[in-house]
Amino acid sequence: MNSIAIITKKKNKEEITREEIAFMVNGYLEGEIPDYQMSAFLMAIVCNGMTERETIDLTDVMIQSGETIDLSKIHGKVVDKHSTGGIGDKTTIVLAPLVASCGVKVAKMSGRGLGITGGTIDKLESISGFEVESTKEKFVEQVNKIGVAIMSQTGNVAPADKKIYALRDVTGTTESIPLIASSIMSKKIASGADAIVLDVKVGNGALMKNIEDARALADRMIVIGKHYHKPVKCVLTNMEEPLGYAVGNGIEVMECIDTLRGHGPTDLKELVLTLGSLMVSIAKDCSKEQAYHELEENLKNEKGYNKLKEMIAYQNGNIEDIEVDSFISIKSTNSGFISHINADQIGEIVKKLGAGRMHKEDTIDHGVGISLSVKVGDFVLENEELLKVYYDLQDVNIQEILDCFTFSQDAPKKTPLILEIVE
Amino acid sequence: MNSIAIITKKKNKEEITREEIAFMVNGYLEGEIPDYQMSAFLMAIVCNGMTERETIDLTDVMIQSGETIDLSKIHGKVVDKHSTGGIGDKTTIVLAPLVASCGVKVAKMSGRGLGITGGTIDKLESISGFEVESTKEKFVEQVNKIGVAIMSQTGNVAPADKKIYALRDVTGTTESIPLIASSIMSKKIASGADAIVLDVKVGNGALMKNIEDARALADRMIVIGKHYHKPVKCVLTNMEEPLGYAVGNGIEVMECIDTLRGHGPTDLKELVLTLGSLMVSIAKDCSKEQAYHELEENLKNEKGYNKLKEMIAYQNGNIEDIEVDSFISIKSTNSGFISHINADQIGEIVKKLGAGRMHKEDTIDHGVGISLSVKVGDFVLENEELLKVYYDLQDVNIQEILDCFTFSQDAPKKTPLILEIVE
Repeated sequence: MNSIAIITKKKNKEEITREEIAFMVNGYLEGEIPDYQMSAFLMAIVCNGMTERETIDLTDVMIQSGETIDLSKIHGKVVDKHSTGGIGDKTTIVLAPLVASCGVKVAKMSGRGLGITGGTIDKLESISGFEVESTKEKFVEQVNKIGVAIMSQTGNVAPADKKIYALRDVTGTTESIPLIASSIMSKKIASGADAIVLDVKVGNGALMKNIEDARALADRMIVIGKHYHKPVKCVLTNMEEPLGYAVGNGIEVMECIDTLRGHGPTDLKELVLTLGSLMVSIAKDCSKEQAYHELEENLKNEKGYNKLKEMIAYQNGNIEDIEVDSFISIKSTNSGFISHINADQIGEIVKKLGAGRMHKEDTIDHGVGISLSVKVGDFVLENEELLKVYYDLQDVNIQEILDCFTFSQDAPKKTPLILEIVE
Repeated sequence: MNSIAIITKKKNKEEITREEIAFMVNGYLEGEIPDYQMSAFLMAIVCNGMTERETIDLTDVMIQSGETIDLSKIHGKVVDKHSTGGIGDKTTIVLAPLVASCGVKVAKMSGRGLGITGGTIDKLESISGFEVESTKEKFVEQVNKIGVAIMSQTGNVAPADKKIYALRDVTGTTESIPLIASSIMSKKIASGADAIVLDVKVGNGALMKNIEDARALADRMIVIGKHYHKPVKCVLTNMEEPLGYAVGNGIEVMECIDTLRGHGPTDLKELVLTLGSLMVSIAKDCSKEQAYHELEENLKNEKGYNKLKEMIAYQNGNIEDIEVDSFISIKSTNSGFISHINADQIGEIVKKLGAGRMHKEDTIDHGVGISLSVKVGDFVLENEELLKVYYDLQDVNIQEILDCFTFSQDAPKKTPLILEIVE
C-alpha cells in the first residue's frame, strides 16, 4: 500500500477500504505519513465525502489507535455531551456542574480549539492553576468523589483523532460531515460513556451552515452510535448570532459563572436546560420535564455554581483569578434594531486578536475577546455601547467590528434557539 | 489575508483573486505557509478546478516569483518543447540533439520526477559526471556554441513552481488541468522561448486519462500562451502502453542512444519526428514535410547522435558510463497476442523499484527499471521473454508484473500514436 495511491483513489471519488483508512491514519499517527500528505487526503475527503461504511471504519480505526476508557467503576449511567462548537459556545462549563448537581455523574473529556476560537479546555485554562491533564484513574476517582470532571482528552484516547484534529484546524478541512462525525464519535465512544447527547449548531457561526447539513451530521452520528449500541440524541440549535454575549476564553468563563449564579444570558440558559434535561432524563430514567424542573431549581439555589467551584478547586484552579485583558468600548454609529450579528466574522476577529490558532504550533491568548453588549432584536441608539473589545497588543480594526452588525428600523423576527431534536 | 480563509474559499468552489493566489504562492515560497496548508490548497484546486482567469494569474504569479531568462542573445527563433510526461517518455533526450542537428537552437530546461518515474533531468543524471545545474549565462553560451543544452530549471526560474511541483509529486495532486497548465507554461514563458510545442499524453500511462481532458489541457495552455503572445502547438499522443521499451532512468538513456543510432523503437521515432517537424518548421519557417524529411535524414546519418555526444561531453558526462543495474528476465506464462500493457501499473512498479519518489526528500535509483521485450500487437509464446527487470536490493513481485499484460487470441487493433494536433 502507498499513501499517494490512496490519496489519489479518494481524489478520484472511489470508495476506500478499511485497510487503506487504517494505513493512512495509523501511518500518520506513527509519523510515517507526513502532514502534507495527510492534509491533501483530508481535503480530498472534504471535497468528495465518505460513505457510511467508510465513516464507521474511520471512527473505529481512530478508536483502535489508542486506549478506551473504562467507566464501569462509576455508579449509574454516564451520559456524555458534545457540541459541534459555535462562536461563544461555553455550554459545557455551565452544563457539566449543573447536571452533576442533580446527582448525575459527568465525566467530560474536551478538546482544544478547532476552527475559530478556543475549545472548552482552552477556555478553562484561563483559570489560574486549573489542571486539565490527568490519568484515567484520577479522572474516574474525581467523578466518583465529586460527581464531575472536565479534562483534556488524554494522550491515549483516540490519539489519531487528536493529531488529525490539530491538522484540520489549520488546513481549512474542518467543515466535513464524515470527518466531524468520526472525530466526535471516536472520542465519545473511546471515552466510555453509555449514551451521548450532541449539540449540533446550525447557521452562520457554526460548522454546519444549514439545517440539512446539520441533520445529515446528526444522522451520521446516530448511525455510528448504533454500530456501538450506544443511544445518541442530537439537539439542532440555531447559531445565527454568538451564544451569550462573550466570545473569547477568560471572558467566556466569567459568563459561565454569571449564568450559574442566575445572571446569565437567556439563550445560554435555555440551551443548558434543554441539553441537561436530555442528559438527566436518560441517566435518571425520568421525564424530560421533571429533569428540566430540577435543573432550573439548581440554577436558582446555586447548587450548580457550588459544584463548579468544587470542581475548579479539585483541579487546583483559583476561581478568583481568571485571565482577562483590559478593554475598549465600541459605540454604535447607527440607531435601530439589531437585525443580524455576523457570528463567523466575530469569530474571525477574536481569532485574530489571539484567542484561536492560525498555525498548529500557536499558543492561545486567554485574556482577549469580544463581549457583546447587545443581542439580535435589541434596540440601540447611536453612541450606545455595542460591545467591549478585550485586547493585548493588537491593532483593533473598529470598522471591521462594526461591519458585523446589521440594523433595521423594524423589530426583526428571531429564529428560535432550539430548532429540533433528532433521536 | 489569511491562508485558511483562502483554502476555505477554494474548498467552497468560490473564485479566488490574483492577490489571494499571490498570497498563497509567495507565502509558500518564502516558507510562511507550511507544506500541509499548501497541499490542502492544491487538493482543493484539484477537486474544484480553476477558471481561465485564475489559471493565468497562477501562471503569472509563478513567473513573477523568479527571474525570466533572456534568450535574445541566441540567433534565430528558439522553440521549446515540453511533454506532460508519460511512462517511458524519454523523447527530449532524442529530440533536442536531433532538432539541433538541423541547425535549430534548442535551449531546454527540464524538470525532475513528477508522479511516477524520474523526469528528463533524473534520467540524464544516470550518465556519470553529467552536470545539469548551471547559470543562465553559461546556458545561453552553450546553446550559441553547440546549438543545444538540456539543464535543470535554475533556482531562479519560477522557483514557486519548483517548490509546488515537488509537493504535488508526493500528495496526489498531480492530475489537475489548471495546475499542470500553469506549471508547464510558467516554466516555458519564464525560460524565454519564442514558441512552444507541447506533447500532451493521453491514456492509461499519462496524466490525462482521456482525449477530452487532453484537449482541455491543450486549450488551457494555448489560452495562457495567447496572453503572452507566444504561439503554442499541442500534439495529443496516445499513451496506452509505455513509450518505447525501457521504463526507468539509465535504461531509458540507453534506448535514446539506440534511437539516435537508428535502432530505436518505432513509436519513439515517430513521436520524435512529429514533434521535431513542428519545431523545425516554426524555427526555419519551412513546411512540416520538409522538416520531417531533414530530421529523418539526420537519424540515418547519425548527425543527431553526434550532437548528443557533443552535448554530453560539453556538460562533462561520460557516455560510456551509464548507471544500469543487473537484471532478471521474466517469461510469459501465456501465449497469444499482447492486447494491452498497463502502463500506469508498470510505472508504479518501477517507482517501487526506486526509480521515482515516494516522499519529497527521496533520492532516485538510476539503475533500476523495466525493459519490455514486447509491445501491444506482438505475438508471444509461453516461456518467451516478456521483459527484463533491472533491480537493486528490492523484492521483485513477478505476479504483479505479469498482471500488467493482457492477452488475446486475435491480433488487437492498435490505436495510432499521434491522435491530433491542436494549434
